[in-house]
Amino acid sequence: MATVRLWTDEEVARNSRVKAIFEDIRATRNSDFVNNFWRALANQPSVLERTWASIKEIMVAPGALDPLTKELIYIAVSATNACSYCVHSHTAAARAKGMTEEQYAELLAIIGMANETNALASALQVPVDKEFEIS
Amino acid sequence: MATVRLWTDEEVARNSRVKAIFEDIRATRNSDFVNNFWRALANQPSVLERTWASIKEIMVAPGALDPLTKELIYIAVSATNACSYCVHSHTAAARAKGMTEEQYAELLAIIGMANETNALASALQVPVDKEFEIS
Amino acid sequence: MATVRLWTDEEVARNSRVKAIFEDIRATRNSDFVNNFWRALANQPSVLERTWASIKEIMVAPGALDPLTKELIYIAVSATNACSYCVHSHTAAARAKGMTEEQYAELLAIIGMANETNALASALQVPVDKEFEIS
Amino acid sequence: MATVRLWTDEEVARNSRVKAIFEDIRATRNSDFVNNFWRALANQPSVLERTWASIKEIMVAPGALDPLTKELIYIAVSATNACSYCVHSHTAAARAKGMTEEQYAELLAIIGMANETNALASALQVPVDKEFEIS
Amino acid sequence: MATVRLWTDEEVARNSRVKAIFEDIRATRNSDFVNNFWRALANQPSVLERTWASIKEIMVAPGALDPLTKELIYIAVSATNACSYCVHSHTAAARAKGMTEEQYAELLAIIGMANETNALASALQVPVDKEFEIS
Amino acid sequence: MATVRLWTDEEVARNSRVKAIFEDIRATRNSDFVNNFWRALANQPSVLERTWASIKEIMVAPGALDPLTKELIYIAVSATNACSYCVHSHTAAARAKGMTEEQYAELLAIIGMANETNALASALQVPVDKEFEIS
Repeated sequence: MATVRLWTDEEVARNSRVKAIFEDIRATRNSDFVNNFWRALANQPSVLERTWASIKEIMVAPGALDPLTKELIYIAVSATNACSYCVHSHTAAARAKGMTEEQYAELLAIIGMANETNALASALQVPVDKEFEIS
Repeated sequence: MATVRLWTDEEVARNSRVKAIFEDIRATRNSDFVNNFWRALANQPSVLERTWASIKEIMVAPGALDPLTKELIYIAVSATNACSYCVHSHTAAARAKGMTEEQYAELLAIIGMANETNALASALQVPVDKEFEIS
Repeated sequence: MATVRLWTDEEVARNSRVKAIFEDIRATRNSDFVNNFWRALANQPSVLERTWASIKEIMVAPGALDPLTKELIYIAVSATNACSYCVHSHTAAARAKGMTEEQYAELLAIIGMANETNALASALQVPVDKEFEIS
Repeated sequence: MATVRLWTDEEVARNSRVKAIFEDIRATRNSDFVNNFWRALANQPSVLERTWASIKEIMVAPGALDPLTKELIYIAVSATNACSYCVHSHTAAARAKGMTEEQYAELLAIIGMANETNALASALQVPVDKEFEIS
Repeated sequence: MATVRLWTDEEVARNSRVKAIFEDIRATRNSDFVNNFWRALANQPSVLERTWASIKEIMVAPGALDPLTKELIYIAVSATNACSYCVHSHTAAARAKGMTEEQYAELLAIIGMANETNALASALQVPVDKEFEIS
Repeated sequence: MATVRLWTDEEVARNSRVKAIFEDIRATRNSDFVNNFWRALANQPSVLERTWASIKEIMVAPGALDPLTKELIYIAVSATNACSYCVHSHTAAARAKGMTEEQYAELLAIIGMANETNALASALQVPVDKEFEIS
């Protein structure tokens, strides 16, 4: 249950601003499927537009990190934040981009380990080494 | 200021259990530098041993993800947890492993974006799409 | 599924301490509906009493911030903590207090943005400007 | 200590892309002061541009929420995330926008209370009431 | 819905590495019941092995803290992280180890209070007292 | 640097409401030392009063959990929230109440482990076992 209505394709079709974004999502991803995150954001067209523009620039446009690495980083943040929806959507995306079971196992190990040592460093209040300072 | 004493090399030399771990850290990393995290954990030898064994297996041993990708994921978790020490130590590690400024800029963008959409998905309580279910 | 039983009105009626709080909740809110949060806390009467006393003082009593603004702040914290129940209950409360769709859209934008820049500031470990110091 | 260099005005002047953003920050805020967050982001011009564009649209442009309310919400998220820099910069911003001591005291009370009940609801795993469902 | 398949006992029986861990879980706990956490981790045998070895050493082996106290600490962390699964599994474990309703009520009060004062200390950015420094 | 002034004993002496709380803190703890948290909250007397009343009831009054166990739980929450001030103040309090090095080492191990398995359970979205349901 969301806190807002999830827009159906019929509702999207009646709002030109939302319709334009949904068409760009479909064209960019080369798929007819538009997931619930965007159907929820359709209630706030300005947030929808800005969020999609950022996702498209950061996650879709070619860059220095490959698309799968980007999804692995996204999963790591989402698991740390306990965001159920985001874990599901980005794990599905990572698999669609070729994540192997070996890569997934290592990702999980790193996520667990990083959260463990983060907690230890916070509990011990370890001071930053001078060697880590930038010159 | 830590909540515990940071062990000097002299103190480490007097405790065989801690000494063995510090020697393995130095040999594994091929560097004489041992950072404060381990000098704090030296107060709890069993935690020191288990933590180093896990870090060595997960972050150092060859696997399906390359060493730089592992550090990028570690930074993402650490920034999300606001762990100052961990952000510093793993950003330094990523640079030592060749992270370029372009890769760092993209990593930052993903960390920011993931935390943004995590918060939006949580605020909207978006239900998981059936399409994300595993078969 | 809660980790405790949710008390029915019949059970509440049989415990004078819990009954008094439920009657005050109903009288204060001028509504017969008592939501599950209080039915769960009924298992711990001392926590129930202290929590309701604080909520009544902070959220209900007139003050320098209007009731709707208080709910918006509550939603922002709840979304950041990924507290599903709290997001739902306080979004419903904000709507009952007159939150418009325009206000909700702006709230969501701020929640997303704040979580994004929080993560960026943590990842970059930006030092606090001298200009922000209190004199 | 940041993980990146903080750009001085001299360095900013030598990079046209960063210079344009800094000029817009100064013009928009009608102040010569540009805080460290932007001087850190100057290392990643694309992140700088996108972040400033979003902040300007969300926090500066007139909307349904007044500027002070927006800052209060920002402080609430920042305190919940334990983002030291963000707490300082947005508390300073709220004061510059007229936050009174009474409003600040109530904000703090709500931040504390919301984090408390979020933790209680998570510990008790309270199920969402049917009454909160949107129709 | 998990992001991975939960292994049935039949599947476990066909994988010697996973089978060995499940047998040790059953023998250690003196119970035939193996909860879903381990059935999910079965997909990543190396993570399964390391996680179980750590849990066994930290939570099961006799030590300076009694088994119930360990579970109370685990619940506190899990509620703070809003980890639904972990809250349920460790609350059940605490009850199995004899947690009384009075202890549970006090645990909940501390979890709520600690999250409240953590948020207040972060919002106020209270500097650490010299008196807390270790000598 | 706090976001508010820390009240000196002279300032406290001039405000009867704050003075009464400080006197109760000193009498309750049987110590002249009042730490910075309370000196920061002095700016918001109503928050100061309510927070101290809760702390006194939850942490000081005799109950089903002993005083040291309460502090261990408080440290666990504080480390998980990366609250530097709270980690320091409650680690000092735990030591004052007799925490041994063995207990501290086990506490740290549990804090690390719980954060690790919380992240794994969130990353895997493990469904709650029917066996954990309350009857």
